[in-house]
Amino acid sequence: MIRKVRVKAPATVSNLNCGFDVLGLALREPFDIIGMELTDTGIVEIIDIKGCNNLSKDPAKNVVGVVLDAMLRKTEQKTGFRVIIEKGINPGSGIGSSAASSAGAAYAGNILLDNRFSEIELVSFAMEGERLASGSAHADNVAPALMGGITLVRSYEPLEIVKVHIPPELYCVIIHPDLEVKTSEARNVLDKQVPLKTAVRQWGNVGGLIAGLYSEDYDLISHSLTDYIAEPKRSAFIPHFYDLKATAINNGALGAGISGSGPSVFALCRGEKNALKVHKELISLMRSVKMGFKDYISPVSKEGAAVY
Amino acid sequence: MIRKVRVKAPATVSNLNCGFDVLGLALREPFDIIGMELTDTGIVEIIDIKGCNNLSKDPAKNVVGVVLDAMLRKTEQKTGFRVIIEKGINPGSGIGSSAASSAGAAYAGNILLDNRFSEIELVSFAMEGERLASGSAHADNVAPALMGGITLVRSYEPLEIVKVHIPPELYCVIIHPDLEVKTSEARNVLDKQVPLKTAVRQWGNVGGLIAGLYSEDYDLISHSLTDYIAEPKRSAFIPHFYDLKATAINNGALGAGISGSGPSVFALCRGEKNALKVHKELISLMRSVKMGFKDYISPVSKEGAAVY
Repeated sequence: MIRKVRVKAPATVSNLNCGFDVLGLALREPFDIIGMELTDTGIVEIIDIKGCNNLSKDPAKNVVGVVLDAMLRKTEQKTGFRVIIEKGINPGSGIGSSAASSAGAAYAGNILLDNRFSEIELVSFAMEGERLASGSAHADNVAPALMGGITLVRSYEPLEIVKVHIPPELYCVIIHPDLEVKTSEARNVLDKQVPLKTAVRQWGNVGGLIAGLYSEDYDLISHSLTDYIAEPKRSAFIPHFYDLKATAINNGALGAGISGSGPSVFALCRGEKNALKVHKELISLMRSVKMGFKDYISPVSKEGAAVY
Repeated sequence: MIRKVRVKAPATVSNLNCGFDVLGLALREPFDIIGMELTDTGIVEIIDIKGCNNLSKDPAKNVVGVVLDAMLRKTEQKTGFRVIIEKGINPGSGIGSSAASSAGAAYAGNILLDNRFSEIELVSFAMEGERLASGSAHADNVAPALMGGITLVRSYEPLEIVKVHIPPELYCVIIHPDLEVKTSEARNVLDKQVPLKTAVRQWGNVGGLIAGLYSEDYDLISHSLTDYIAEPKRSAFIPHFYDLKATAINNGALGAGISGSGPSVFALCRGEKNALKVHKELISLMRSVKMGFKDYISPVSKEGAAVY
């Protein structure tokens, strides 16, 4: 029986413009690392959090604790976990920081519990971390963080996740401006009702994006990367958002938008060469407007959570 | 130069549950036939309509006339068409009767005009027929009637149609109850605004259906065939709708729903054998409730409008 494991779980970009609350993809980097040891205490202990000062070690207030506690409640008594979290992803960035820790915790816990849970059960456990972090147990980040690739939450009740075909050349460029957008605030600005006509346009794009991914039709992917729901509202939180988006697209990106609820902005590119060009231009723009930021460039990763 | 042509254009099932206003598929039968001759009169003449007594021969009041007139306005003077329409599809059935005639007219007209228009232009012309028939120039029936297979209207402005991969075993069973549902009435019962949560569920299913079609995952196709938008409202127009749907699904259909705006009910089946079983049970149900009906059973057809 394995008693000790170390896993990584990647950052993720959710929504992908048109797929509000249902689509997400895994990056190769950045990622969180979860080191975990099996104990016979019956409880979860978070003994260290590296790379981040403002996360609680109280298991009831940390997504890792909440996820593992949900798993322990489905196992026999006296099993416990001792955990060290290494944060590679900044909390509040909009690239699935809480999701990565949640997914990593579920994945590591399952290894120490002899893989008794299925992948979809792990997504359910990880969603409990999202409930703590954002107030809503959404799956559009934890699914790709666990399963890798591009995922579609087809349904929440019952939970059904589809792994979508990944064209080989997809790259993501991420600009994370130095500002905080609370997921709960980003949710509150959205209209609770949408015009049917707008909804039809949105699901035309969801269908187009999925068709484009399967058929590796980059033009179709590009045309489908449009959001009529969240971007018009949430872009107000992100200074220079439309400049960033226009710069990405004018430099050949397939599309660009808000990653999750922001503030990170992502550009989806075809091929590493184009991603490097878009990355360079976005960095140059951020410097010219004198905004602090972090930046990432990564292929869309087939791998989700994995032993590290 | 070809001066005379005869084409067929098939019936179509639009919406396919989740894909309101964007998805549709072509059947092998029934179909309309358009016989057409090039003239130098500069006008459209409809000289006969077979198989239907209540359609106008006035070109301004017949979808065929309207579609051909739209084409003629883009060509040199003095070109004209003389047309015979053979209706194989009952008007008002909900399986794209006006769309088939419109698509057939556009396809036949294009052959006589030396194929000067592209497929997407033909869809645009055929949409003018839909505007006459229903008041809205929608493409979800004319696209599959022209192009065959399963089509997605990714966007109306600009018009972009995607041909979706067709799993080999898909069959449709159609029950057309003897009653009339006006497309305009069926549109009026729909809410103009939908809750964001409902819209998210709907586009989760659109994504799931497209993914299921490409990956030939019949379970995923089946799960995705759910409609939260039109069916809850329009089912009121169709007596025994939910009995028909339940009977289809209980007998192994992948899904069932309202074809277009009804009153036809469709069941999507995997394989001819299952389609025959579902067909038999639906017929038996219609007889037991003593409702008049017509019925069709057809594979999903790769072929749309074609010379006949």
